[in-house]
Amino acid sequence: MSGFGSAVVIGVGPERGLGAALAKHFAAQGLHVFIAGRSAGKLELVAEKIAQAGGRSSAVVADATCETDVERLFDAIRESGLPLAIAVYNVDSNNCAPLLETDSDMFSRLWRQNCLGGFLFGKQAAAIMQSQGRGTLIFTGATASTRARPPFTAFAAAKAGLRALAQGMAREFGPKGVHVVHTIIDGVIDGDRARGQFSRYVSTKGDDGLLKLEALAESYWALHRQHPSAWTQELDFRPFKEPF
Amino acid sequence: MSGFGSAVVIGVGPERGLGAALAKHFAAQGLHVFIAGRSAGKLELVAEKIAQAGGRSSAVVADATCETDVERLFDAIRESGLPLAIAVYNVDSNNCAPLLETDSDMFSRLWRQNCLGGFLFGKQAAAIMQSQGRGTLIFTGATASTRARPPFTAFAAAKAGLRALAQGMAREFGPKGVHVVHTIIDGVIDGDRARGQFSRYVSTKGDDGLLKLEALAESYWALHRQHPSAWTQELDFRPFKEPF
Amino acid sequence: MSGFGSAVVIGVGPERGLGAALAKHFAAQGLHVFIAGRSAGKLELVAEKIAQAGGRSSAVVADATCETDVERLFDAIRESGLPLAIAVYNVDSNNCAPLLETDSDMFSRLWRQNCLGGFLFGKQAAAIMQSQGRGTLIFTGATASTRARPPFTAFAAAKAGLRALAQGMAREFGPKGVHVVHTIIDGVIDGDRARGQFSRYVSTKGDDGLLKLEALAESYWALHRQHPSAWTQELDFRPFKEPF
Amino acid sequence: MSGFGSAVVIGVGPERGLGAALAKHFAAQGLHVFIAGRSAGKLELVAEKIAQAGGRSSAVVADATCETDVERLFDAIRESGLPLAIAVYNVDSNNCAPLLETDSDMFSRLWRQNCLGGFLFGKQAAAIMQSQGRGTLIFTGATASTRARPPFTAFAAAKAGLRALAQGMAREFGPKGVHVVHTIIDGVIDGDRARGQFSRYVSTKGDDGLLKLEALAESYWALHRQHPSAWTQELDFRPFKEPF
Repeated sequence: MSGFGSAVVIGVGPERGLGAALAKHFAAQGLHVFIAGRSAGKLELVAEKIAQAGGRSSAVVADATCETDVERLFDAIRESGLPLAIAVYNVDSNNCAPLLETDSDMFSRLWRQNCLGGFLFGKQAAAIMQSQGRGTLIFTGATASTRARPPFTAFAAAKAGLRALAQGMAREFGPKGVHVVHTIIDGVIDGDRARGQFSRYVSTKGDDGLLKLEALAESYWALHRQHPSAWTQELDFRPFKEPF
Repeated sequence: MSGFGSAVVIGVGPERGLGAALAKHFAAQGLHVFIAGRSAGKLELVAEKIAQAGGRSSAVVADATCETDVERLFDAIRESGLPLAIAVYNVDSNNCAPLLETDSDMFSRLWRQNCLGGFLFGKQAAAIMQSQGRGTLIFTGATASTRARPPFTAFAAAKAGLRALAQGMAREFGPKGVHVVHTIIDGVIDGDRARGQFSRYVSTKGDDGLLKLEALAESYWALHRQHPSAWTQELDFRPFKEPF
Repeated sequence: MSGFGSAVVIGVGPERGLGAALAKHFAAQGLHVFIAGRSAGKLELVAEKIAQAGGRSSAVVADATCETDVERLFDAIRESGLPLAIAVYNVDSNNCAPLLETDSDMFSRLWRQNCLGGFLFGKQAAAIMQSQGRGTLIFTGATASTRARPPFTAFAAAKAGLRALAQGMAREFGPKGVHVVHTIIDGVIDGDRARGQFSRYVSTKGDDGLLKLEALAESYWALHRQHPSAWTQELDFRPFKEPF
Repeated sequence: MSGFGSAVVIGVGPERGLGAALAKHFAAQGLHVFIAGRSAGKLELVAEKIAQAGGRSSAVVADATCETDVERLFDAIRESGLPLAIAVYNVDSNNCAPLLETDSDMFSRLWRQNCLGGFLFGKQAAAIMQSQGRGTLIFTGATASTRARPPFTAFAAAKAGLRALAQGMAREFGPKGVHVVHTIIDGVIDGDRARGQFSRYVSTKGDDGLLKLEALAESYWALHRQHPSAWTQELDFRPFKEPF
């Protein structure tokens, strides 16, 4: 199913970020990529890069937590007439605070972005893929998806929900030909966000201590390429130096 | 800390249900029990039973998903002047539907009841207990807390969030003297709900195949009685006949 | 089933150790306790303490990894004519070494002591308990049972095997009335071994940072007292200050 | 590191089996493959197939549970002068019996084949790869590696040990450039063994219900190809139709 049809990635932000890297990789494989995110400016930059490399994409401004936005995104995909080969829910919204300083707005926001959005997106993707009898649906998780530690408890509660969603969907849609995967990104991604927000952490880790965008993109693609007789439902990714 | 102070249980419903059984057990140990739930009528019945057995309780009508209700509940506890020995989040709201037939309202509702409410309740309880330097906070989980299976994916996503919340809170508040526990109820509880909703399932299982209310209440109490040098964070409960 | 019949604990060593504490606790509940270990001298000291407290015990010198020793131990139990209420496999043998410095003798020895012995002991106990239609069989595990970290990889490999054994036996013998439990001791036990071997660690932790023997013994007893309608298969124990 | 150097697979049996499939795949990528197993006849058949396809291999008769055999195998690898790119421990020995009918010989044999052999093999491979500063070491696990169910408890106890070994080794050798992976094969492999031993099961599953050898070989190769900045430590493989 490579080299034909479309892909969709939601949670596309800075040009050097996982969402953008996945979009560029899928486009390089010949898929028309629908890129979605909240910032029209960022999407445009990614779309330009894809075009420069000879790929095709459509930018759709969408908030993953807004059902009508997500529906509009999938309407665009359906209207394209292209089969949907691969869909990635790549929204990742974290917050660092002691529990007693976390208010219900923050707790809810993290859940909407990390989990509810996954449900809205996953449901749309699964509906299309089930009717096709094929397709790959990947949810990007984190270390916190399997382990809750303060001051990231609210984030962990949201990511654990996403992980359960992915597992339940894998059991429900696998037999219908839809490959549902949950990835556990255990470490810091070498992108604009880390270099901006955690620059001290990044310099401590050294170049070897960060997850490379292209390495992740290749592995996501390898998951899509897996034969249905041997599908992976969950796997972790971490830099070789990362203690765990 | 037995026999003195107060307890609070939210999610108290039918008289033969886990919430009511816990409340009665805690009252029998001498604690003043704050019982909270959405139905004034049901709370009243439970309060009467407690009174008949010589115990003390206060009924507080509260929706666990409503922050002001939860705050009001804990205001009442603070106003009582009694130390808070034990708090149990016992709300459990399930739904059975294929994912594509689960709408975002249902997905959100299950999360609010099973997870957000736990956050609102847990935060209030932890604040009091941290200031006391002691207390037991128990979150009631389910099989789905660790394993997502259709047609219970939405429920599992919510319960997995609650489990992560409990784990993160245990790590944060344990060193401050607050014992945070997550229980995994793996099976059907022998109460009004099961006998009403799953009567056929109940008859298949036989009397031996259901979790007895008093057995659970005793084990919750044993958790509260654990010495701080050997606290349990998570444990499962299931009928001896239950396959797992 | 308390206060009547017999108990057996294997892995009884120093007087201030978990094996001895369990034996003393069970004897205090009125059970005749068979205490087994490799050192006749240590067993004698424990037996004396039990007698001084008005309890009854029989010391059986036995190497848990030696099938004939284990059979002899259970022959003695059968010959007593007493029902076997509770059996604890409490052997715990660790080693700390980089993997390349771990030889196959050490790897095998840790497995025999932590896992094979559990099989030999568990099989004998389960055979008796199954014929009785009741009984509690507890395997003492460790942090490493669920997580392998160097330089304790060999230990973890052995303990993970014991945990799987306990889980499989719980599934097989639960429906026959035998309660099989796996405990995860996450921390250092406040006994002679820790104070001898890790005295510096112990002084770092402070008195609050160690698992108290009597606290563990009470929780093991609470597991035995659980009603069959709500049995626990696995639970952790750690000091409230322990990071995890 | 593809297309250059050597690979080693132990647990090479029937020509249509995972060990053989991995060997053929690695040879097709240009590696000289050392194939090891207990049957000279079977190894010869696999070696012939590799040669027919233009690949290179060396057959080494070896029992994975025999330390001198394993040492001899790695002596041959060292003598070849080729770097060791990839090593797979693919021994899988199961048995189906109620626990009370499992004797200590069987329990020990399963452990030696599924776990001790992994230690002997892994240690040799890690020593070479650590000195190279690179290499991929894969342990083949099974459903039972994470879940023990009768009548496979003894098998699960052995496989859980192997899984812990892999996890501990990943933590120890990852930072030294050695990629250690544990795979969870959740289903029946479409090979001679299944078609011989479980022919009825195979016919129930249908062609779609079995793990294809070539699909697994490709995924093992993809693991080897992962960039060190984003290594996977554990992942599952199952047929899309497999309930789990």
